Amino acid sequence: MQLTILGNNSALPAYGRHPTAQVLSVNGELLLFDCGEGTQIQMQRFGLRWRNLHHIFISHMHGDHYFGLPGLIHSMSLLGRVAPLYLYGPEALMPILQLIQNVASAQLSYPLHFIPLQNNGASLIAETKMFDVSCFPLQHSVPCHGFVVVSKNKGRKLLPDKCKEYEIPAAYYDRLKQGEDYERKDGLLIENQQVTTDGPPTKKYAYCTDTLFNPDIVPYIKDADALYHESTYLEDNTEKALLRFHSTAKQAAQLALQAGVKQLLLGHYSSKYKDPQEFQMEAQRIFPNSFATIEGSTYEI
Amino acid sequence: MQLTILGNNSALPAYGRHPTAQVLSVNGELLLFDCGEGTQIQMQRFGLRWRNLHHIFISHMHGDHYFGLPGLIHSMSLLGRVAPLYLYGPEALMPILQLIQNVASAQLSYPLHFIPLQNNGASLIAETKMFDVSCFPLQHSVPCHGFVVVSKNKGRKLLPDKCKEYEIPAAYYDRLKQGEDYERKDGLLIENQQVTTDGPPTKKYAYCTDTLFNPDIVPYIKDADALYHESTYLEDNTEKALLRFHSTAKQAAQLALQAGVKQLLLGHYSSKYKDPQEFQMEAQRIFPNSFATIEGSTYEI
Repeated sequence: MQLTILGNNSALPAYGRHPTAQVLSVNGELLLFDCGEGTQIQMQRFGLRWRNLHHIFISHMHGDHYFGLPGLIHSMSLLGRVAPLYLYGPEALMPILQLIQNVASAQLSYPLHFIPLQNNGASLIAETKMFDVSCFPLQHSVPCHGFVVVSKNKGRKLLPDKCKEYEIPAAYYDRLKQGEDYERKDGLLIENQQVTTDGPPTKKYAYCTDTLFNPDIVPYIKDADALYHESTYLEDNTEKALLRFHSTAKQAAQLALQAGVKQLLLGHYSSKYKDPQEFQMEAQRIFPNSFATIEGSTYEI
Repeated sequence: MQLTILGNNSALPAYGRHPTAQVLSVNGELLLFDCGEGTQIQMQRFGLRWRNLHHIFISHMHGDHYFGLPGLIHSMSLLGRVAPLYLYGPEALMPILQLIQNVASAQLSYPLHFIPLQNNGASLIAETKMFDVSCFPLQHSVPCHGFVVVSKNKGRKLLPDKCKEYEIPAAYYDRLKQGEDYERKDGLLIENQQVTTDGPPTKKYAYCTDTLFNPDIVPYIKDADALYHESTYLEDNTEKALLRFHSTAKQAAQLALQAGVKQLLLGHYSSKYKDPQEFQMEAQRIFPNSFATIEGSTYEI
């Protein structure tokens, strides 16, 4: 998994930083989390191809998390996209997109499948060969969801030399990857472990924005390889964070620690802060493996 | 008048070019024409202050001309704007903005006055101390308007030395600017022309996008100091321009010539063209004072 940050500012764009959007690449398949204004332009800028994008997740109905969606959806249609697109978000999202579409007398060139998220609900929402995605409720001023992506194990890894040594036909390799043993025509049983090793481990990524500091979400994000958690403010604005249903860098770090994640990625910085490094320093005092994300950067998970 | 181009690409962003938006400064007051995705970010980037923006004009309901509007409107509210904003556009615009606003459970911090434009109508839509704005119908695949701005003469220009020589009290200067004569206490009549000269001339700016080549609009744009006219294609794609209700650079130049304007500014380039200079060269063969606009550039009118 690789995560590319397209926008990591809070609602008001500032210092050249854009509103929230990020792309998770899972074995080459792209998943877009939130779609702030300018997302299609940022995707172009950072070389992320729409062809590999089939799933878009919208956390909540504040504009800085979805105002780039009408443009992106429409542009893919102008480019003649035919592959279906799966859109997951609050129920209120689809009527807006529909109205915009109707007014332009335009029809999309591809099927758009909308999967509404239940307020306060936690559930498995996408299940593919490559990954599963679940959502869970965050605590914001409007209904808001976090998302967890778990990549799927691609099976056991073949040892080609061993396979040849035991004269296993290539046609049987897929079954070896699934863990099966092989019985040769001369009756010799080749056990799976003799010709394969463990495949690459599954990865878990958790995305949490916008939200109050909320330890109730620990069961969902537990042991994630990476947690992206909003840090709109620094500790000196803890009161303001509380009032506006946001978190501080310190709180994000406390949650990362409690959940036992491997790395913490920070973002959704308030426009009052010029230098994201301050967020990193505050978080690292509690959770050393913390990073203040930078737009255009890609993080290995 | 100065015109700053924020976006001059057609629907699909390309080569770093943004969808349509431009700001006309009339004696320091800003008028925004169309508001493609990314407008608020482009305004920040080019140092255009929202405080001086009170009038926004939307030509038609294709997304590349208004998808930046929800973000801009909302950001000004987050910044605590109190000054009223006047929005002129197709009737279908307001229900979309209203729905977006309702869903976010948000209220604007300032009054937003919406002035719907009648399909196919031509009329005076804004009248202020500094300028008048009229709209007129263009020929596009959906109802679409062009706009004409005429700045107002700020009155006659005082000759301070002459005013002192004739001992005219400063309190009377405003009436001199309005063209009045002054009668001194000793009975001497000072004629206005003795202490003033002609003020700066009024300026006329015409904005035409998106549209077919259409000589019917000449009466509206006649003698403009500057005409911005779309040129989505070059002459080799005249057929495509016709099919898609757009114009070529050559057609824009023909219209500029017919209307006797002083300069022609080109834009709304199709994503298939990398270099806007080609548009300029094509137009200049017919109308020498043609310029292919560049994003971020400001044009004196």
